[in-house]
Amino acid sequence: MSEAENPVSKRAPIHAAMQQFPVEQGELVIGGERLSLLAARVGQTPFYAYDRSLLRQRVGELRLALPAGIKLHYAMKANPMPAVVGLMAGLVDGIDVASSGELKVALDAGADAREISFAGPGKREAELRQAVASRVLINVESFRELTLLQRISDALGLPARVAVRVNPDFELKGSGMKMGGGPKQFGVDAEQLPDLLVQLARSGLAFEGFHLFAGSQNLRPESICEAQLKSYELALRLAEFAPMPVKFLNLGGGFGIPYFPGETRLDLRPIADNLARLLDRARSELPQAELVIELGRYLVGEAGVYVTRIVDRKVSRGQVYLVTDGGLNHHLSASGNFGQVIRKNYPVTIGNRAGQVEREQASVVGPLCTPLDLLADRMELPVAQEGDLAVIFQSGAYGASASPQAFLGHGPCVEVLV
Amino acid sequence: MSEAENPVSKRAPIHAAMQQFPVEQGELVIGGERLSLLAARVGQTPFYAYDRSLLRQRVGELRLALPAGIKLHYAMKANPMPAVVGLMAGLVDGIDVASSGELKVALDAGADAREISFAGPGKREAELRQAVASRVLINVESFRELTLLQRISDALGLPARVAVRVNPDFELKGSGMKMGGGPKQFGVDAEQLPDLLVQLARSGLAFEGFHLFAGSQNLRPESICEAQLKSYELALRLAEFAPMPVKFLNLGGGFGIPYFPGETRLDLRPIADNLARLLDRARSELPQAELVIELGRYLVGEAGVYVTRIVDRKVSRGQVYLVTDGGLNHHLSASGNFGQVIRKNYPVTIGNRAGQVEREQASVVGPLCTPLDLLADRMELPVAQEGDLAVIFQSGAYGASASPQAFLGHGPCVEVLV
Repeated sequence: MSEAENPVSKRAPIHAAMQQFPVEQGELVIGGERLSLLAARVGQTPFYAYDRSLLRQRVGELRLALPAGIKLHYAMKANPMPAVVGLMAGLVDGIDVASSGELKVALDAGADAREISFAGPGKREAELRQAVASRVLINVESFRELTLLQRISDALGLPARVAVRVNPDFELKGSGMKMGGGPKQFGVDAEQLPDLLVQLARSGLAFEGFHLFAGSQNLRPESICEAQLKSYELALRLAEFAPMPVKFLNLGGGFGIPYFPGETRLDLRPIADNLARLLDRARSELPQAELVIELGRYLVGEAGVYVTRIVDRKVSRGQVYLVTDGGLNHHLSASGNFGQVIRKNYPVTIGNRAGQVEREQASVVGPLCTPLDLLADRMELPVAQEGDLAVIFQSGAYGASASPQAFLGHGPCVEVLV
Repeated sequence: MSEAENPVSKRAPIHAAMQQFPVEQGELVIGGERLSLLAARVGQTPFYAYDRSLLRQRVGELRLALPAGIKLHYAMKANPMPAVVGLMAGLVDGIDVASSGELKVALDAGADAREISFAGPGKREAELRQAVASRVLINVESFRELTLLQRISDALGLPARVAVRVNPDFELKGSGMKMGGGPKQFGVDAEQLPDLLVQLARSGLAFEGFHLFAGSQNLRPESICEAQLKSYELALRLAEFAPMPVKFLNLGGGFGIPYFPGETRLDLRPIADNLARLLDRARSELPQAELVIELGRYLVGEAGVYVTRIVDRKVSRGQVYLVTDGGLNHHLSASGNFGQVIRKNYPVTIGNRAGQVEREQASVVGPLCTPLDLLADRMELPVAQEGDLAVIFQSGAYGASASPQAFLGHGPCVEVLV
C-alpha cells in the first residue's frame, strides 16, 4: 500500500528523513562503499558501520555553528569503539570517560590526558588511583571521593586534578533522561557544595572547576538553553566558594537526535546564541574558565547503522515477518528495551532496495526466541526477500556496547569504521 | 521506619519471602558459604552465584510434584553458564538450545545429543548444518527451514531429526511474554501445518513431533493448564496429518517465579493434575509420544543471586543512595529495562546484614552514568555502609547473559556455581 492510497498514514507522525547516506544503484552508500560490497568486505552480518566522513562533518558543522570559544568534548560512553575514539580524539577538544576501562581506551587511542575528564557515581578506589596516575581531570561526585583522592594523591605524590560534579537544583526539561535536580546519585547536591569546597581547599588537590549535567537526548533548544544558563549561573554562585579560580566549566550536553516518528533535528542557532552570551559573560565573570560542552550521541549517533541480513521471510496470519540474523542481542535500544516506556520504531529500511517502488507493511524481527526481539513493528518497507540487508539508522550511539551480546549465544557483532 | 509504624506499607503489596538461603552470623549463606567469605573466594565483586543444592532441590521437587511420565527439559537460554548446563544436563531429561552457540555449550557439557532440541525463528543455514551433523532434534519454524534441511540432509547423508514448532491459534493468558497466538515470528501457523506436513512427508526427513510454546513467566496455574490442554489437543488434531506417529510433544513451559511485590509462588498441584490427565489421554491417543515440559527460569531463577559491593553511601536531598560497583551492565532485568513496561523492584537485601534491626529507606544504584542504572528504588533495607554487599535475589535466570556487560567499560562480572 503506498502512502498516497492511505490518507491516515499521511497524517500520522513520520520519521525524520535519513539522507546522510547517498544512494547508488539502489543501495545505501556507507563510508563510500555500496552496502552489499561493504557487507562482503566485513565478511559477516550483523555489523555496525560508522561513517568517518559523517563524524568529521558533524564536528565541523558544530564548530561552524557554535561560537569559537566553546570547547567540544566527546563522551565516549556513546560509542567506545577504539577506532572511533581515536578518530574523535583528533577532532574534539577532550574526551570524557566513565570508567577506568574507558580511560584505558582513550589513552591508548592517543587522547591527551590533560583533556580527559572522568565522571561516574561509583568510582572504585582502584579507578581513582588509575585516574590520578594518568593525570586526568576527575569529576568528584561525593565527599568520599574527595577523601580518597587526598589519600591517593599523598601516596602517589601527585595532586589529583579535580572538578566537582554538581547535582543542580533544577532539571533539564523535556530531556530523554534527567540527570540533575531533585535527589540524585550523580554529583554533589548544590547546597552541599560550600562544605565540600571547604574540604577541597584544605586538601591540597588541584581544583579546576565544575561539571553540571542536567540530562540527555533533548530536542528542544529552549530547554537546553535554559539548562545551560542555569548551570552557568549556579557555577558562578559556587565559584565564590572555590579555593581557586574556575578554569573548567562543563555545561553538559543533552543535544538529541531524531529517533522516532514526529521527531525533528535539533535547531542549533538558539543554542549557539545562548552560548555566545554565556561566553561573553564569562570573559568578565569567570575570566580563566573554559566553557565545555560534552556530547556523545549527538556527535556519533547519526553516523552509524546496524546492518543485519534477512534469513527468512514468513507470513503469519497475514503479517509479514522479516527474520534477521541479529536483533536485540546487538541493538537493545532499537528493540525498545533500553529506557523507553512505550516501544517505538527506529528509522529502518532495506538497504539494498533503496527507492524500490514495491513496498509493504512488514515487521523486522531478530533471531532470538523472545517476542522482545523486534526491530521494526509493522513498518512500511520495500518488499524484501531472504538475503536482503535490513538497516537500522541512528545507530552510531548506544548500540553495540549497550547490548547484551552474549544473549542466546548468537555471538558478537562486528564494528567497522569506514 | 519499621513496618509496624507504617500501616500503609503493611497493606501495600510485598515481595514473596526469600527463604531459599539460610542465614548464619547475620549473613546469607550461598552454596554453603557465608556471603562475605564467598565474595573473598570469588576475589571480586560484582558476581553471580548459583547454588548447586537449590538447583538439585528444584528439579527434585518438580519430579515429585509432576507425574512420573512427564519429561523435563532445561531451556538453557535462561542460564547458559557452562557449569550450570553441565549440572542440569545430569538432572533433567533434555536440553533446549536456541542457537549453534548454545548447542556447542550443551554438547561440551556432555548433554546427550539425542535429548537436545533446537528452536529459534531465524536459524542460519550454517546453524542448521551444525544441528543436523550433531544429530539433535530441530524444531522447524518455517517452510524455508524445511527446504534447507532437505538439502543439508542430502549433502550430509544424514536425515535431519525434526519436530515442527507450531504457532497455535490461542495465547497463554496472563503470561509475561506471549509467544503464540495471532501473527507471530515463532513457528508455523497451525492452519499452515497440513501443507507443511505434506512437504515433510515427501522430504525423507525424520519427523518426531511437535513443539508448542504459548508464553513464559506465568504465575496463574489455570492459564498454564489451559495452554497445556489446548496445546495437547491441537497437537492431536495435527497428528492426523503427520507422516509418522508423534514421538515427541513439547508442551512448552511458562512456569513463572515471583519477582515483584504481590507475586506469589506458583501452585504446582493443579498443573500436576492436568498433566496426569493429559498423560492418561496420550496413552491411548498418542501412544508413542513423550510429553515434555520445557523450563528455563523456573529451574534456575531462584537459585541465583547477583552480589555487588557498596562503594559509596550518599544522601542527596534526604534520599539515601547506596552506590554499588555493578548495575544494569550486569543485571539489566533488575534495572527494569528488559521487557518491563513499568519498573518494579526485584527482591533486594544487604546480604551481610540479614536480620539487622536498623532499617531505612534507600535506593541501590549502579556505577553507570545513567539514571537507568537503578537496582532498588526507595526500598526498606538494613542500614548499610561502604563495603557492604547488596544482593539481588531471583537472579539465576536472564541475568549475566542478558545484560550489556561492555556498557561503560566497567568490565564483565564473574559467575560461580557453588
